[in-house]
This record gives sequence, structure tokens and C-alpha cells, in this order.
Amino acid sequence: MPSETIELRGHIIDSLILPKVLDEIIAREATFKIGEIRIGERRNDQSFARIEVSSPSADELDALVLRLRQHGAEVSEKKTVQLAAAPADGVYPQGFYVTTNQQTFVRVGEAEIEVRPALMDSAIVVDRAAKTATATKFYGIKKGMEVVVGHQGIRVVPLQRSTVRTDVFEFMSSNVSVEKPKSAVIREMAREFKRAREEKGKILVVGGPAIVHTGAAEHFEKLIEWGFVQLLFAGNALAAHDIEYALFETSLGVNLEEGALTQHGTQNHMRAINAIRGAGGIRQAVANGLLKRGIMYSCVKRGVDFVLAGSIRDDGPLPDVITDAIEAQKAMRAKLDGVTIAVMMGTMLHSIAVGNLLPATVKTLCIDINPGVVTKLTDRGSFQAVGLVTDIEPFLRELTDFIAADR
Amino acid sequence: MPSETIELRGHIIDSLILPKVLDEIIAREATFKIGEIRIGERRNDQSFARIEVSSPSADELDALVLRLRQHGAEVSEKKTVQLAAAPADGVYPQGFYVTTNQQTFVRVGEAEIEVRPALMDSAIVVDRAAKTATATKFYGIKKGMEVVVGHQGIRVVPLQRSTVRTDVFEFMSSNVSVEKPKSAVIREMAREFKRAREEKGKILVVGGPAIVHTGAAEHFEKLIEWGFVQLLFAGNALAAHDIEYALFETSLGVNLEEGALTQHGTQNHMRAINAIRGAGGIRQAVANGLLKRGIMYSCVKRGVDFVLAGSIRDDGPLPDVITDAIEAQKAMRAKLDGVTIAVMMGTMLHSIAVGNLLPATVKTLCIDINPGVVTKLTDRGSFQAVGLVTDIEPFLRELTDFIAADR
Amino acid sequence: MPSETIELRGHIIDSLILPKVLDEIIAREATFKIGEIRIGERRNDQSFARIEVSSPSADELDALVLRLRQHGAEVSEKKTVQLAAAPADGVYPQGFYVTTNQQTFVRVGEAEIEVRPALMDSAIVVDRAAKTATATKFYGIKKGMEVVVGHQGIRVVPLQRSTVRTDVFEFMSSNVSVEKPKSAVIREMAREFKRAREEKGKILVVGGPAIVHTGAAEHFEKLIEWGFVQLLFAGNALAAHDIEYALFETSLGVNLEEGALTQHGTQNHMRAINAIRGAGGIRQAVANGLLKRGIMYSCVKRGVDFVLAGSIRDDGPLPDVITDAIEAQKAMRAKLDGVTIAVMMGTMLHSIAVGNLLPATVKTLCIDINPGVVTKLTDRGSFQAVGLVTDIEPFLRELTDFIAADR
Amino acid sequence: MPSETIELRGHIIDSLILPKVLDEIIAREATFKIGEIRIGERRNDQSFARIEVSSPSADELDALVLRLRQHGAEVSEKKTVQLAAAPADGVYPQGFYVTTNQQTFVRVGEAEIEVRPALMDSAIVVDRAAKTATATKFYGIKKGMEVVVGHQGIRVVPLQRSTVRTDVFEFMSSNVSVEKPKSAVIREMAREFKRAREEKGKILVVGGPAIVHTGAAEHFEKLIEWGFVQLLFAGNALAAHDIEYALFETSLGVNLEEGALTQHGTQNHMRAINAIRGAGGIRQAVANGLLKRGIMYSCVKRGVDFVLAGSIRDDGPLPDVITDAIEAQKAMRAKLDGVTIAVMMGTMLHSIAVGNLLPATVKTLCIDINPGVVTKLTDRGSFQAVGLVTDIEPFLRELTDFIAADR
Repeated sequence: MPSETIELRGHIIDSLILPKVLDEIIAREATFKIGEIRIGERRNDQSFARIEVSSPSADELDALVLRLRQHGAEVSEKKTVQLAAAPADGVYPQGFYVTTNQQTFVRVGEAEIEVRPALMDSAIVVDRAAKTATATKFYGIKKGMEVVVGHQGIRVVPLQRSTVRTDVFEFMSSNVSVEKPKSAVIREMAREFKRAREEKGKILVVGGPAIVHTGAAEHFEKLIEWGFVQLLFAGNALAAHDIEYALFETSLGVNLEEGALTQHGTQNHMRAINAIRGAGGIRQAVANGLLKRGIMYSCVKRGVDFVLAGSIRDDGPLPDVITDAIEAQKAMRAKLDGVTIAVMMGTMLHSIAVGNLLPATVKTLCIDINPGVVTKLTDRGSFQAVGLVTDIEPFLRELTDFIAADR
Repeated sequence: MPSETIELRGHIIDSLILPKVLDEIIAREATFKIGEIRIGERRNDQSFARIEVSSPSADELDALVLRLRQHGAEVSEKKTVQLAAAPADGVYPQGFYVTTNQQTFVRVGEAEIEVRPALMDSAIVVDRAAKTATATKFYGIKKGMEVVVGHQGIRVVPLQRSTVRTDVFEFMSSNVSVEKPKSAVIREMAREFKRAREEKGKILVVGGPAIVHTGAAEHFEKLIEWGFVQLLFAGNALAAHDIEYALFETSLGVNLEEGALTQHGTQNHMRAINAIRGAGGIRQAVANGLLKRGIMYSCVKRGVDFVLAGSIRDDGPLPDVITDAIEAQKAMRAKLDGVTIAVMMGTMLHSIAVGNLLPATVKTLCIDINPGVVTKLTDRGSFQAVGLVTDIEPFLRELTDFIAADR
Repeated sequence: MPSETIELRGHIIDSLILPKVLDEIIAREATFKIGEIRIGERRNDQSFARIEVSSPSADELDALVLRLRQHGAEVSEKKTVQLAAAPADGVYPQGFYVTTNQQTFVRVGEAEIEVRPALMDSAIVVDRAAKTATATKFYGIKKGMEVVVGHQGIRVVPLQRSTVRTDVFEFMSSNVSVEKPKSAVIREMAREFKRAREEKGKILVVGGPAIVHTGAAEHFEKLIEWGFVQLLFAGNALAAHDIEYALFETSLGVNLEEGALTQHGTQNHMRAINAIRGAGGIRQAVANGLLKRGIMYSCVKRGVDFVLAGSIRDDGPLPDVITDAIEAQKAMRAKLDGVTIAVMMGTMLHSIAVGNLLPATVKTLCIDINPGVVTKLTDRGSFQAVGLVTDIEPFLRELTDFIAADR
Repeated sequence: MPSETIELRGHIIDSLILPKVLDEIIAREATFKIGEIRIGERRNDQSFARIEVSSPSADELDALVLRLRQHGAEVSEKKTVQLAAAPADGVYPQGFYVTTNQQTFVRVGEAEIEVRPALMDSAIVVDRAAKTATATKFYGIKKGMEVVVGHQGIRVVPLQRSTVRTDVFEFMSSNVSVEKPKSAVIREMAREFKRAREEKGKILVVGGPAIVHTGAAEHFEKLIEWGFVQLLFAGNALAAHDIEYALFETSLGVNLEEGALTQHGTQNHMRAINAIRGAGGIRQAVANGLLKRGIMYSCVKRGVDFVLAGSIRDDGPLPDVITDAIEAQKAMRAKLDGVTIAVMMGTMLHSIAVGNLLPATVKTLCIDINPGVVTKLTDRGSFQAVGLVTDIEPFLRELTDFIAADR
């Protein structure tokens, strides 16, 4: 029966790594024998385990070891990665290794190289001369590039729970349901925002039109003005509703002062888009005095970078929208360096898209009134995602109140 | 082909009564001929229509006319109701008429008697001597009582939309979804509350434990203190959570200050129930100084009447809980006279139960974060129900802010 | 006080047009006087009403009449449309008229021209020489085109409920909730499908990956093979999951035979996409024998036309995916002629996008297990949309069983 | 700093017990030192760990140890339980220990006694003479009974994942979402049902009226007839809808053959209840030939025991309904011995109530189309609960098909 010896290092017990590994082995009907185990006696100590894994066939063992690597297991013997040339532009070679969003190293000869960025569902392109390893989407592949195949020589370092708690993202183990009080979490968020700013981390907001619909734009503008937003990813809808509100005081025809009491249809929505198309874009509309308030206005005035990504349900769209999905992915990915907090509010499409682009190290906060959306966005087994099932307007109102009280 | 002539009166066009009647006729594959129609030319004028309805069989015609009566149709000829004796205690006679929650009259000889209360899913007991007609649940029936059978001699007067708008319950035609701004509706609610108090109408709150869970108890206590709650219907859970919070500052073990960050299980919950059981009840616990704050404390102190109705999922329960479902229904029904506004928050079971007991004239406001609950509670075709899909804590916070600003 | 006389024609009472118009007038605080009313006495007769509407200001009257036109009101005096030149490519002139998805006519001089296609949220471009009126999205506008402004000379003909019922789309007034039996509706759907095929109408399916996830692909393939699908609109996900299943028998790594019991991650998903990229596209992969079964295979083999529209959350994508949102809208719109039934399953993004492109005359059926999605998709006040809240796999199983039983 | 030494035994790593314990210690800001650890080298070996836990205060240590016991930790020194007398009927003494639904032992002198039944949220009454320990709800307490206080001398044995997998309840780690294929799970369920019958285990069904609404009654009747249901817990609604369907072929006025296409209101519902009230009860109605088919008929005919528990939203109710919540709890609890599988369908109220009464060893399957209900019912950290988000009718159809294929 073929077997291989793997090693685990780090906070392998309280980060649940050891149990997950054993569980995986049993689930695959393989067997294990623990050769050595040293458990850190105090909170800051690292633990270590060496485990011999046996499986009925070499193929199954191979597949199992692949899985165990996702949990951070290393095979004891150091092997170098296997590489194969891409057969055509945009096509990976057979047997390519699929990346996760965890920190990953590849061994090339004697050197271990970190794969950058930590981008999931990509292949790894190795440049031996430059000693780089790059997670590369299909569209980045050129014929002949050397791509990692198999899973030999790859080491994944899963995010580990720190033993000294520092923040709300780590010690919350699950979402905050509808039935729980949220004030304490929101107060912690306010502190995280301040800490991020002090440490020069960027805060990314991924937002849907509900920010405007629910009457929360004014709170969001405060966050921008106070310097708590460095990057905004959204679709045509958020910008179009914001601009409709700025120009006509309605959102999809609903007067936000009179609230749900009146409705005027999509006419103002279409006129708002037309006005910006006439001006040539959002920045131009701010420059020529047409657009004088609102979220997009505040972004332009305060130098907040934004990417508006198109979708097939868009009206218009505004000239600033990147209508090509791949171009939009590239534009978003290009701006993610330095982001330490991502706040996702009221958009499942954009939130999932951005979630696919983020490294596991980015702290993620999801707010939606639909519990299904929150679960879907935070259910990635990371210690770094927190979900709140609540209305966006009162969430942003309370968040800005906490920040204001403590400025 | 059997036919009958019906008449419609009132705001039959803008209250959608005429179209619904015609729709019903067509849906039943019957035919109609409009004999006369007079439409009020100005907003306050009443309209009138006389329609001859024909159907393939007498039985089908009968069933159809029954339906049309629900929309307010009268058959032209005045007939007296048919009565039959109840065959046993708690049993209606064959063919009994099932009431709605609309205003209803029965013709007994020459007199028309209003059925009281306007209580749905009951039978009508007529006392000819006393000239009363009483909507009576199964449990109120004694052998030999005279009960209305068939649907001859019955006139239903559906609630009609007033031509002069006076309040938010009438001019909102649907629920306020998640995506809409709610402030304007909540401001109108604050006005309705004040108007109800000025006009000596009672305000009933039907509440679930989420009022406590979400941290909204302090807002609710303000409503009680300011005199905006005359009646509270709830279950064991609301009271037990409130008392747990009053005694231990937790709700189901969750510390409401530290929020979702800590959890201590059901121990405090059980201890709170035990403490009240030891005292003999909520009022006794207030009297002996054990219970010093919270919703139930405020109710006792401010003389707000309450009914706590039991359910099979209760822990304990508290001594004040009526564990028998029929006794609880009776206790609630007995206190409903004079109620003009019912606010339902965070409990589907109690809200539906109370909805079954309320006349159509009571203005009903439902708040829940689950859109399905709101739809179920407000989807009764009445002009008098408004639903808000939102979190309870921010709703009550904003409502009390509006009321406070204008006191 | 300015006033205007409007006329209503057709089944204005049982289609609820008259009540809606009066309601709208009252809601705008305008007044009305009914000059003449003739109500059809039998089911096939048309009705007629002439109403004088007065409003405090000319502007408000104008806005009101615009709204009433959406309900089919005509102003008595025949006026010609006003036209203005588009100021730039992709920009409408000031005051442009926003279309609905209803049949619409514009009066140009003495002639009335039907606007084609019946496409909502567009402007109307009039070509006086060619005597055409074209609903045109922003991207179709060239500088100098003549575009309708204001709302004079425009007549909207709302879809009216037929007095002779012919199908399930007309006599179902609302969605079929979770709690209702669905077999009868599904049986009617089977009949509609057959009728559409007999009458040479095209059936469009808009589908999400849940068709594959839930194990319903085999049923869907039967529909294709039996000739009940002429057009498929989907995203990268449906095709990629289908092809993963065809090549590896998994869907996002889930083995569909062993069901939810095993999970293998996204590796097969990525390999499936890579294989098709290597082949150059879906049709090529069918031609070269790589792809031998599944939904996309059946489409290619049976000549079912498809559009795969990209989104920012796509992996890959497959070479067949149109990644530009505007190009994808154009491609879908170009294929809609002749479609009489649209079935939307398991995708909110694509369903809303397609809903925005469809004329009101297309019968629409939405199936989703999430009641919110069904409500959103069918809640357009049309008599032609039916929603079913249910699981996709059993729905398609039962639909194909009914069709098979009756072939 | 006060400290205590705890011991863990069993499959403490792959059952996640050790990591949870360490996690709990860290979360409470306590510290630990691992004295000894022996990890089973093969799948069937037990593991052992001895850990010294220290906490800033004795109170906090006490609270922490209480928590750790829920995970199966024992304190090394064997202490006897502390007992106090109940101060009054229905009242526990101060500091009473609150039970879980796990197997629990109390040390009384030298003997360890198992607490029976394994009933959560109760106190433990010890009868020293009879050597029994009984989990006792408030209503079972008589003044003077000896009740366990504190948590000394108590040992909880959490359910552990078996190392040899035998069934679907153990190896499914989470719910089966809407997006997954369910056939494989349903096939496993069919096998579990057969196994339970072979092993003489009882199958309990907790059902809501949706079983009837969705047209699934015929499938459920098959389960009863084939001997796969020994016990039915439901409310008035299931029985009343079933009987309405048996007598009138409608459910809440909806004809289940014509499906959602027709609606007749609550009249048949009320008549069905009245008919059974007239007969004196369900069994009498079967005996006298009034009730000839349906779920309740099948239960009576096949000797399936049932408890109908009342609620405040009931119409009627039927004479068989236990209207008192406490009496209904007692009646259900009294019948639970021998139950090995509990299937919960379409009722949150009854499912939660029954969940509160079940030992952790009962395998629980929850089916609901609302994901929130499924999550709430299965989210108890047990390896023994499986949830399926799907429609009840197709679930029961497929389950009975699998069972029939293999009879």
C-alpha cells in the first residue's frame, strides 16, 4: 500500500488544521499513523505533527496529498515543481495546478518562490530567469509560458488564527444573524476602520444600488469625506441611482424624502444616465458643475478610485462603466494591492466577483438583509469574514455615528 | 339558466369592487349583464351598479353569489336569514355560514342586525329575543343555539377606501420592501400613533423575543412610558428574554452590550424563569423588588394590560402564561375592543393568531426582517395593512426618535 | 385650473384600467369628471369612457397625463409627436420619451406608426422618410437622429386580458407559492409548450447553473431533443457546469450521482473550461468528439441557437461567451423575434436582463426556489407572467413526464 | 491564578473535541498547559489528553469548566454532586444545573448514575434511595425534591463521530443546499428508514400542513402503510387540512387536483373541523365511516400513534388536539422512547418544540423549502442532523419511489 509522510506545523490544533487533515484522510478511506506530535504548551507556541498516510492506490494517495496540501501539509521530501509549456494563448497545459487564495510557495530547484498575487482559480506561471511565480488567469497566458502541473513542490500556508486576538474578524466564528444585537459588532468595525487608516491599509467598498435606495447615501458620503474609503467597486446601477438622486432627488423614480409613498417610474433614471452620457462621463460632469453632490461626486472630489463594472441588466450604461467582463476583472485586480478591509453591501454579483479576486488575508465584512447572500459570501471557512444580516441604511448610520463619536 | 340580480354601492370603482365582482363572475364561467351603472362624478360621490348574473346551475349561482357578497354585493330582493339549531355543544349545524372580518348584517324578519364582533371564521348565533347576532367560535356554541345557515339575508359591507386620504394605511397599496427608504413611512407611523392617542384609540403591540434580542427593548419601553402602548400580546419567550435581560443583562445568554461577541447558553434564561416562578409571577416580582426594569416591568408600572399566550416550544413557562390555546384566544379577544392600531413585530405565530381575531377596521402594521412573514401577514387585500421589511431595533429607534422630536 | 380630456377604450373594467386611471388621478390630487361611460354588457363587448381631468398646474397635468397614457389613455385631440435631434452619438435629446414594453404608436403627421420593437427603457427614433419608429437604446443613437420628446402624439395599448380564456398565463393572477400544489400548473405548462410548437412560436429558455447542479440536465436535454427549446440564453456558468458534468460527471466538483455526499472543489470546473478553450469553442469541441453529451452538446446537435452572456464573476470564460455586456444585449435582442414563451430558471441576473428586452406579449414563466426571485421577476403587472416557487429538478422532471405522457 | 486539571478521552481529535476545548479556553482568556497527550494511531484507537487550565478568578474558572464539560471534559478529581431541595412546587433551587441533550452522569457518593432521559433545559432530580437521576422540567418539580446545583460531579459524554462510518447522518457535515442534487441523500434516507425498521427503531414524523397543501399526502400515506411511520406529531392544521382534503378534495379551499388554479376560501376547512367535532373525534369519525381516507385515517387504521398539539392560531380545533402546551409537551415526551429517526417537515413551531425534547442520539432529518428554517433546525453542532432545502412533495415522492424500488 503506497504511503507518504507529511508534516504539519503551526497552530495546527486550535486552527483546526490537524483534525481537518485526519478527517480528510479518514474520509478518503486512507489510513494514518502518527509518528510524532508536539503540541505547543502555551498560546504562542507552535505545534508539529508528522503523519504517515497510506492509501490503496498511488493515484488515490496522490489525490489525497493534493487535498492535504490545501490544509498546509508538506511532504517531507523536498521536490521541485513540474512545469509544462502552455499549448496556446489563453490555454493552460494538461494537469495544471489550480490555485487557492492562500499564501503559496513553489520550489524551483533549491529556491522556494512565493506565488503572487494570492489569487484563486488560476494557474501558476514560473519565470525561472526572473525567479518569479505568478498566479495567472486564462487571459494572461501566452503560448509557451511555463505553467506548474501536478502538485509536487507546492506548499500552501493556510491563514492561521492568531493566538493573541486582535480584532473582530478573528474572534467571530460565524455570522451575526437577524436575531442578534449588532451594535457591538458595528462598534468593533468602527475601530477596525480607524486602525486600518492608522496603518495605511486601504478600505475597499463593494456596493450595490441599495445604498442609495435605502437612503444610506448620506452616511456613505461621510465615510468618503472622513477618509475611510480608498476604493469603490460597483456597477452601473449604484452610480446611476446615485446620480439620479443627486439630480432629481429620486431613486428609480422613488422620492427618497417622501419614501415609499410615491413612485415615478424609470424616467428620471434614464434622464440621469443621458445627462452623464451628454457630459462625457462622471468626472467631466463634476468638472462642468452638472453633478454637485452624491457618492460619485464625493469620490471624484476626494480622490477615491473607482471601478464600475458592467452587466447585461444595465441601462445605459454610464460612460465610465467597463462593459467587458474580463477588462473589468483586470481593472479591479490591478487596484487591490494594499487593501486590508473589504466591505460588501447590497450586491451579490459584484461581491462574489471581488471575493474571487481577493487574497485570504483581506478582512471581509458583508452586509445584506438577505441571510442567503450573507451566508454565501462569508461561507469560505476563513477566520477573516464577518457577515451581518441587517438593513444597509441603519448599519451605515450606526457605523458613522460610532466613528463620529470617537473622532 | 338561473340568474340573480345584485347591486353594488359605494366607491365601487376606485375601491376596485366592481372590477373584482366582474372578474369573479368571469372566473366562475358565469355571465353578466349590466343593467344600470351610475359612476360618481366627483371624488366624494358614491357609485351604483346593478348587474344580472347568470350561471349554468342553481348550485353554482349560489356559490358565486356567496363570493360576490364578500365583495359587498347585495341581492336585490330582501330575504331573511335561515337559522338552524346547534346539534351539540361546540358543534355548528350543517351548512353554517362562515364569517369574514368585515362588517356584516343579517336580516331577521324586517330588521337588519349587525353581527358583533367582526370576527372571521366563526358562525353567527342569532338571539331573536335580544335582537343580537354574535360571531361565535366553536367553543362558544351551546346545543340548541340558533345559527345562521346558507347565505340568504346576509349583507357584508367591505371596508372602502376613503376618498379623502387621511393616513398612511390607506394610501400605501403594498408593502415597503427591503430596497425602499422607510423613513417617510415611519414618520407617518409616528403621526398615526399620536392621532390614535388623541382620539382615545388603543394601540396593541404583538411582539416576539426579537424585540429583546435585537437590543430594541429600551425603545419599546419608551413607547410604553410615553403612553403609546395600551395592550401587549406576546408569548413566554418575549417576557422570559426581557426578564433575563433585566436580571442578567443577557438574552438567551448573549450579552446585549457586547453583542454577538459572546454567548453563554440558556443558563441565564432558565434562571430568569425560575426566579419569576419562585416569586409567583411577573406582577409579584415587580411588587417585591426582584424585577426593576425592562418591558414587562414597564407594563406593570404603567398599567399596560398584557396577555402571554403559551406554545409547545416554551421553556418554563412563566406563571403568567396562559398555556391553553383556547383560553389564550378568549383572553386576547376579550381585550380587543377599542383597539384601532395593531403593531406586529417579530412573531409570526402570535401575529397570525391575533390577525385572525381582529376586525378589518383595525389598522395593522407588520415589521419583520423576513419578507415572507411580512407578505403573509399583510396579504389580506385590506387597505388597512402596511408591512415593513426591516430590522426591529432600527425601526423602533427611528419611530421613538420621530415621536420624541415632536412631543 | 388646466384640464384635458382623455379617452379609454377596451376591456377597461375587467382589465382594471379604469380603476387604475381614477386611482392615479386621485393620487396626484387632481380631479376628474366622467363625461360619458359605456360599459360592454357582455364579455366580448368593449367599453368606453371619456374623462375630463383637471390639475392645479399645467406641469402637474402634463406629468399626470404621461402616467395615464401608460394605462392606455388617449388625449382626445390628435396631435403629432414632437421630435428633436440627438445631440451626439449615444445621447438622447432633452425631454426624450421613455418607452415601455407595451405596444405603442406615434402619430407623425396624419399617420400613426407602430414603434418596433416593443422594448422598454429606450427612446423612439422616427425616420419620417421610411415611416418607421424604432425603440432605440443609447448605443443605437447617432448624432442627428430624430427622437421623440414630450408625450404628445403617443398612444400606448396595454395588453388586455382576453375575455375568452385560453391559457394558464392569463387566468393565474399571481404566483404559485411554496405552499400550493403545482402539478396542475405544470400540466398546463406542458400544454402551452405543445401549443407554442404547433403554432410555430419559439420557446426561449433563460437558465442558470442550478439546472446542472440540481441534477436536472437530463430532463432539459429531453426538452431540447423533443423540439421544445428554440433558443437558450445563459451565462458562462451554465455551459461550464454542463461541460464539467459531461467530461467529469461532477458539477463544481460535486459528483451528481453521489450527490451532496462528496465534493472535489473547482479543479474539474477549471479543467473543463480549459479543454473547451483548447478546442476553440463549444461547437468545435462537439465537432472534434471531445464533447459527447450534455445540454450544450444537445443544443449544437439539434440546432438550438444560444447566446452565452458574460459576467464579472465568470471563471474562464469559455470562448463562446460574449464578455461585453452591450454586445451580449444586442445579440440577445437580435434573436427575440418570434419568441412566444420565455422560461426563466435559476438565474436572477440573466432573467432580469432578458425581461428588460422582451415585449409584454411574450408569456413568461419563472421557476426558482427563492420566493424573492420569483416575485421580482413576475411582479410587472402583466397578465402574462407566472411564477412557481419550487426546486428546478422536480419541476423539469414533472414537466417532461407530462409532455412524454401525451406525445 | 486558580487552575484545574481536566481530562479528555475518546475520538477527541477527529470529533473536534480537543480543538473546541482549546478554543474555548483561549476565548475565555484563560491559559492552558498540556500535561500529557496520547493520540490514537489507528482509526479505532481512543485518544487521551490531560490539560491544566488557569483563569484569572475562581468564578471565571468555574464558568469555564462548566463550558468544557459540555464538550466532555472531566475534572480529574472525582467529586460528588451537590444537591439542594426544591423550595416550592415547580421551582428549582438556586444555582441549579441546566441539562443538555447529551448523555450525562452524576456522581452520588461512589456511584455514577446516568441521568434519564437525555432532555435539555431541565434540572436533575436525584433520588438517593432509588439511585436514579431524572432530567425534570419545571412542571415535574415538587417541593423538597433534591436537585443538582453547581456543576461538580457531573460528567457529560458528547456524541462522538464513529470511526467506522455507517450512515448519511454522520458523514454529511452540513445541510444540502438548494443548489445541490438531492437524489443521493434521499436514496440514503430510504436505506436508513429500512435499517431503522429492521432494528425495531421507531420513526417519528413531525409534520405541518404543507404535506397536504403541496399534494404530498398520498406519498406520506404510503410510508404509513408500508410501516415506516410509528409516531406522528403535528398540530391542528395538518389534521384539519388532511380531513378537509379527504372530505372535500380541497385544502384551505384549494382544489388539489386543479392545483393553484382555483380557490374557495376557508369554508370547507371550517366544515371539515365541524364534521369531526360532530363525530366526537378522529378515531370516532373513522369508526363511523365518515372519514375514509387520508393521513389521519391511515394512522388510525395502521395503529400509528399521534399527538396533535394545539396553538393559538388554530381554527376549531379538532377534538383530538391537546390545547394545553404543557400537557402537549408531556404527551410528546412520553412517547419518545425507542425513537431512532425523527423526520421534520414543513413546521418550524412543532419541529423546534420536538427538537427540545429529543436526546442528541436521535437522527434528525429536516425538510423545508425555506433555507432559514432548515438552518435553524439543524444548526445544533450534532453529527446527527441533516437538512434538505427542497419542496416537500417531490421529496416524499422520490423517497417513496426509492423505498418501493427496493421492497
